[in-house]
Amino acid sequence: MPTSRLEAFSDGVFAIAATLLVLELHVPETEHGLGAALLAQWPTYVAYLTSFITIGIIWVNHHSVFRQIVRIDRVLLFFNLLLLLFVAAIPFPTALLAEHLTEPVDSHPAAFAYSAVMFLMGTSFGLVWWWAVSGGRLLDRPMSREAGRAALRRFSVGNVAYLALMGLAWVSAPLTLAGHLVVAVYYVLDQVPLPREPAP
Amino acid sequence: MPTSRLEAFSDGVFAIAATLLVLELHVPETEHGLGAALLAQWPTYVAYLTSFITIGIIWVNHHSVFRQIVRIDRVLLFFNLLLLLFVAAIPFPTALLAEHLTEPVDSHPAAFAYSAVMFLMGTSFGLVWWWAVSGGRLLDRPMSREAGRAALRRFSVGNVAYLALMGLAWVSAPLTLAGHLVVAVYYVLDQVPLPREPAP
Amino acid sequence: MPTSRLEAFSDGVFAIAATLLVLELHVPETEHGLGAALLAQWPTYVAYLTSFITIGIIWVNHHSVFRQIVRIDRVLLFFNLLLLLFVAAIPFPTALLAEHLTEPVDSHPAAFAYSAVMFLMGTSFGLVWWWAVSGGRLLDRPMSREAGRAALRRFSVGNVAYLALMGLAWVSAPLTLAGHLVVAVYYVLDQVPLPREPAP
Amino acid sequence: MPTSRLEAFSDGVFAIAATLLVLELHVPETEHGLGAALLAQWPTYVAYLTSFITIGIIWVNHHSVFRQIVRIDRVLLFFNLLLLLFVAAIPFPTALLAEHLTEPVDSHPAAFAYSAVMFLMGTSFGLVWWWAVSGGRLLDRPMSREAGRAALRRFSVGNVAYLALMGLAWVSAPLTLAGHLVVAVYYVLDQVPLPREPAP
Repeated sequence: MPTSRLEAFSDGVFAIAATLLVLELHVPETEHGLGAALLAQWPTYVAYLTSFITIGIIWVNHHSVFRQIVRIDRVLLFFNLLLLLFVAAIPFPTALLAEHLTEPVDSHPAAFAYSAVMFLMGTSFGLVWWWAVSGGRLLDRPMSREAGRAALRRFSVGNVAYLALMGLAWVSAPLTLAGHLVVAVYYVLDQVPLPREPAP
Repeated sequence: MPTSRLEAFSDGVFAIAATLLVLELHVPETEHGLGAALLAQWPTYVAYLTSFITIGIIWVNHHSVFRQIVRIDRVLLFFNLLLLLFVAAIPFPTALLAEHLTEPVDSHPAAFAYSAVMFLMGTSFGLVWWWAVSGGRLLDRPMSREAGRAALRRFSVGNVAYLALMGLAWVSAPLTLAGHLVVAVYYVLDQVPLPREPAP
Repeated sequence: MPTSRLEAFSDGVFAIAATLLVLELHVPETEHGLGAALLAQWPTYVAYLTSFITIGIIWVNHHSVFRQIVRIDRVLLFFNLLLLLFVAAIPFPTALLAEHLTEPVDSHPAAFAYSAVMFLMGTSFGLVWWWAVSGGRLLDRPMSREAGRAALRRFSVGNVAYLALMGLAWVSAPLTLAGHLVVAVYYVLDQVPLPREPAP
Repeated sequence: MPTSRLEAFSDGVFAIAATLLVLELHVPETEHGLGAALLAQWPTYVAYLTSFITIGIIWVNHHSVFRQIVRIDRVLLFFNLLLLLFVAAIPFPTALLAEHLTEPVDSHPAAFAYSAVMFLMGTSFGLVWWWAVSGGRLLDRPMSREAGRAALRRFSVGNVAYLALMGLAWVSAPLTLAGHLVVAVYYVLDQVPLPREPAP
């Protein structure tokens, strides 16, 4: 199987998971007027935004990684399937967090579940990367030491952050969600190795 | 990353968002006979039609724009992700407007939300376009002055119309929906730069 | 825009609409045991089967048609969007018919709605075909008289059948659904112009 | 129609069906605290995992099979559509089993339905394979006797297992689900004919 098929299938899952997030935006029951009810469910919009950007970033990074992979073996296939499983699951903890974000007790397990799915997703991605890279197993030629170190840094930042957010979940759910948004924006700025054009 | 991957991912989101709209068509509770109940939910069908055509048009225009873009940078990637976020969100305000279109009070915030999402979508699309074009940043060669002016006109028409419809929402929700349908049909007729064959 | 992009987008809508049909298969409320409840919702399974095969056949025929189209113009784009709109809508009348198939009164408007959506879908497809073919407008070279007549027969069979089923809906909903299944199987057998291999 | 179009459409259905599984993960009603409620719905997570891996494996095997098919005829098209119909249906028995896994009576028909859909899916896949291979009908050149025997073994293992699990369903639903997970993992290990790299 060429890597292009794996990428196309993965792209499909990314696009569908991102778009399914909208199903968690519910038309509110309007007891006090629709306008107020729409504003009152702001946690849903923030959770939607955060999860959408996160999936978008995973998609971009998935391509960056697979541009360097030239072979596929069973183990990579399985690790990638694991990654997709957690990406496809993201709408569930997103709905969980959106519904419970401002509750005093239940917001904590919701934020923990959100962070845990992100951590499992990030770890699966790390496994894809590690298996492909270590020993130059599935690459055309071994990575430069510098590129390897930069990639390691990027993966570590995400997974350490997700681990920390699993802890922060028990302190404050809104802060946890804000943390995930910060991680997503960090990846927008740092992760993508594309040429940067000067502003006009 | 070649532009083809960005287009394929965007196409996926467009197709899924358009098709998810059908989930807002609900089997009615039939108290007075199914036939009458089906006719009574006509606002749902008009909203479905309007949103479907709008997404279809965005898809066509997205291709027109990306046919001229030959490079991708981080900023374009981010603006495009923002565009996809609002496109993917369209089923939500569509459901909102469909459910409240004929209500005396709640129809107004619903129509405003619909227009606002369209405006944010149109503005994101404008950002994608502006970033790629200004200074010939991501193009193969600079646009002709004429082509640039035609494109500017098309983007302006849509975004000014969406802004006006945000205002009209507080006057009449059905008129607002009709306005969105008119904008979509305008784009069918004006936006697509394809060769026109004479009728036989 | 090359026809390949139009086909890819259409394929996406076909695949998503077909797969979304499963969301109409609901876990039954189990008052008399799950086994019996599962059997009791047999209309849902027949409706699922019929709609799935119908969308599958539309997909196959869409490719047959577009293999012969070499140019795209605005009108074709609009007719194709109309076709996709009705294809994407199919899960709605499917759910309607599945829920009401055996009811004495409400089964009739449900079966009518199902047949009407199929008729509108078939008519849109006919418009796509007519616009591309008449006068050789969008073809590489004009169709042979024989091929044109065969295609006309196939389109007519479907649309006349759908029209007849709109009438039959007011007599018997189960017969109407059976009629749609027969039309779908007819298209499996007749529509696809692929080389036929002798049985071994 | 080239096989690539059939594969792309099938890939779309696989990706969508796998991702739609997440819609069966519901935010629980929290009577005894959200954390406990989330843990209490563990059957849902196991069912999600099992179905996701199963669809992933079908996708991989579908490619393995179609890499060897060079022609398509009507019968293959129809058998493949049948396969897709059962793959697209998987979220339904998954939800069924997830909701009833631990109930004393209703768990059995749920587990039977899950196993039956898998069996029908596996049988459809077997029909695709048999029709393409027997007599070298749709292949470029006949399969080697050895390759044919290995493929036959793999198909038999799955379908005999699914048949056995249809029986086991009436003994224990959790064991049945575990059996499906074992089958999926077996296919991860045995089915994919990809080069295996030594560990570093």
